[in-house]
Amino acid sequence: MSPKRQKATITDVANHAGVSVATVSRVFNHKGIVNEDTYRQVMESAQALNYQKSAAAPAALSADSRRSEKDLLIINIPSLSNPFYNEIVKGAKAAAELHEYDMLLNQGHIHESNLSSIMNMLSRVNAKGIITLNHLSANVVQTLSASFPLVQCCEFEEYSPVSTVGIDDLASSKNAMDYILSTGHRKIALVNGPMEYKYARHRKEGYLKALENAGIEVNPDWIIQLPEINADMAFSSVAKLLTMPNPPDAFFAVSDMCAAAVIRATKHTNFRVPEDIIVVGFDNVDISSITMPSITTVNQPKFQLGYISCELMHEKLTNPSAETKHMVLNTELIIRESTAIPVTRG
Amino acid sequence: MSPKRQKATITDVANHAGVSVATVSRVFNHKGIVNEDTYRQVMESAQALNYQKSAAAPAALSADSRRSEKDLLIINIPSLSNPFYNEIVKGAKAAAELHEYDMLLNQGHIHESNLSSIMNMLSRVNAKGIITLNHLSANVVQTLSASFPLVQCCEFEEYSPVSTVGIDDLASSKNAMDYILSTGHRKIALVNGPMEYKYARHRKEGYLKALENAGIEVNPDWIIQLPEINADMAFSSVAKLLTMPNPPDAFFAVSDMCAAAVIRATKHTNFRVPEDIIVVGFDNVDISSITMPSITTVNQPKFQLGYISCELMHEKLTNPSAETKHMVLNTELIIRESTAIPVTRG
Repeated sequence: MSPKRQKATITDVANHAGVSVATVSRVFNHKGIVNEDTYRQVMESAQALNYQKSAAAPAALSADSRRSEKDLLIINIPSLSNPFYNEIVKGAKAAAELHEYDMLLNQGHIHESNLSSIMNMLSRVNAKGIITLNHLSANVVQTLSASFPLVQCCEFEEYSPVSTVGIDDLASSKNAMDYILSTGHRKIALVNGPMEYKYARHRKEGYLKALENAGIEVNPDWIIQLPEINADMAFSSVAKLLTMPNPPDAFFAVSDMCAAAVIRATKHTNFRVPEDIIVVGFDNVDISSITMPSITTVNQPKFQLGYISCELMHEKLTNPSAETKHMVLNTELIIRESTAIPVTRG
Repeated sequence: MSPKRQKATITDVANHAGVSVATVSRVFNHKGIVNEDTYRQVMESAQALNYQKSAAAPAALSADSRRSEKDLLIINIPSLSNPFYNEIVKGAKAAAELHEYDMLLNQGHIHESNLSSIMNMLSRVNAKGIITLNHLSANVVQTLSASFPLVQCCEFEEYSPVSTVGIDDLASSKNAMDYILSTGHRKIALVNGPMEYKYARHRKEGYLKALENAGIEVNPDWIIQLPEINADMAFSSVAKLLTMPNPPDAFFAVSDMCAAAVIRATKHTNFRVPEDIIVVGFDNVDISSITMPSITTVNQPKFQLGYISCELMHEKLTNPSAETKHMVLNTELIIRESTAIPVTRG
């Protein structure tokens, strides 16, 4: 036996992951739709076998081999408290390892007043590109992307001039609302995040659209608009709402952190979930399956969002003339204990 | 792209001289022993590349006022999944902002096989110091701290040569166990993390010591030794233990993530918490007050641990002759719903 390890091929990765070569190829080239578990399995196999995509992609090889040292990418997240971001970072790091980038994480907001300080930092650490999960104004996107390759993940304006990857927040939200309506509940409250975020604007739009289609009038008292995604604020606002006359009998929360707070608030005010009140969250972070009852939620393909954001960055860095892409990934509604089983109507 | 050559880095000098980054650093900081030929080779390479010893060298940094640009600190965490680390990072970032450092987060393990790659990265980003929350071997501590000011937070060997901040894991664990014993429970299981971590060794020692003091024989089947802090692994192991004859009636878990998994496993196997089984966790992360029942746990001063680790780094950077400090912070036991109220005996 040679002590040297052969380079892993795409077939090795497919065998290791127990999927077809075509699936592996779809994953690596992010073409078409791949189930999230399959995606993760393929990426983990690629890592376990130390598979180098460059060996299979001649265009990337020449660029990779030119790099004598690892290049650095920065991934920027708004908060360390929301596990949603951490799952995305895991995906981005997996792609970074595959393409031999170092990846460091910066936590903080990026706005016009601190942009020059952040750009100074990016220069000093010799960052080759930045992936952001933050809300950025159009001006910030323009200034930042003029100096550093930029990829926006989850949060971006409709006509972002840089590559983006995200979900269809409006459709996903409307779908979750249609499910709530299908259970027979009509008094549905919304727990929303800050409106400067695209996700908050679009999810609210999905909420309103579903109510409109069902011919249900909007009750403005039932729209809780949080200044940030914070479990304690959500708890207090919901607990207050539940002590008012004629409280809602369903909550749609735009984050599982808030949905967990809704469940605590219902318990605090002596309502039962799902008997008295049903709750639907968003994101499918670990917490949503740990709470009791567990939370019905919209799964975002977090690992894949991160992975693809780094792939888009790699594409840009190895081929500056690569076209700007806007990728939209699928979500799934996961039904758990916090919602009643839909009544079958004959 | 600028036609101007980038400033030579310490890595460039190391590559040119054919030695390690650590050796170059020893030469420049005249620390430790370097062979005379090596010394000459490094100095010649530095000259050939017109290398300017940067402010990175602690000796060059005498005062904040001399820093025309923000210096960069790296904080290294083993995992993005454990909210415990994120709370510590928040504290470290608060101190970093106060002292006008940039702080970037690196996630990953640090061991002998990837140390040079990590040190290369630290050099390339011109990091002024590194704070680690990881388990580091004595060799890694020695090599790393020879080139970069290092502060160890939470995890360190007893005679670490660098400044450290942490808690008394043994006493905190024994205290939690004494509380469990005070409730009258005698069949106490331990859910422990990997034994290369100090916290795991010391918390197990506290567990054993408390049992010994109470004259209770250890049941090795009741010591669950996880290969990593992972909620699913903890769930499976505990669920299995609870289906065996003569199961424990109390669990002491060395992390709240595991304590939450214990609660899920008890529910899964039709035991009630706290009526049939009581559960005590460790860390006091958000999750411990969100679970139902909420978790009795040992509060670690997470923000403070992070804050002080950055303060110790700042001290070292502004005064290289500052003495090495070993700080131990207090913990508190927070009693919540997962444990029965101690029986008062007349």
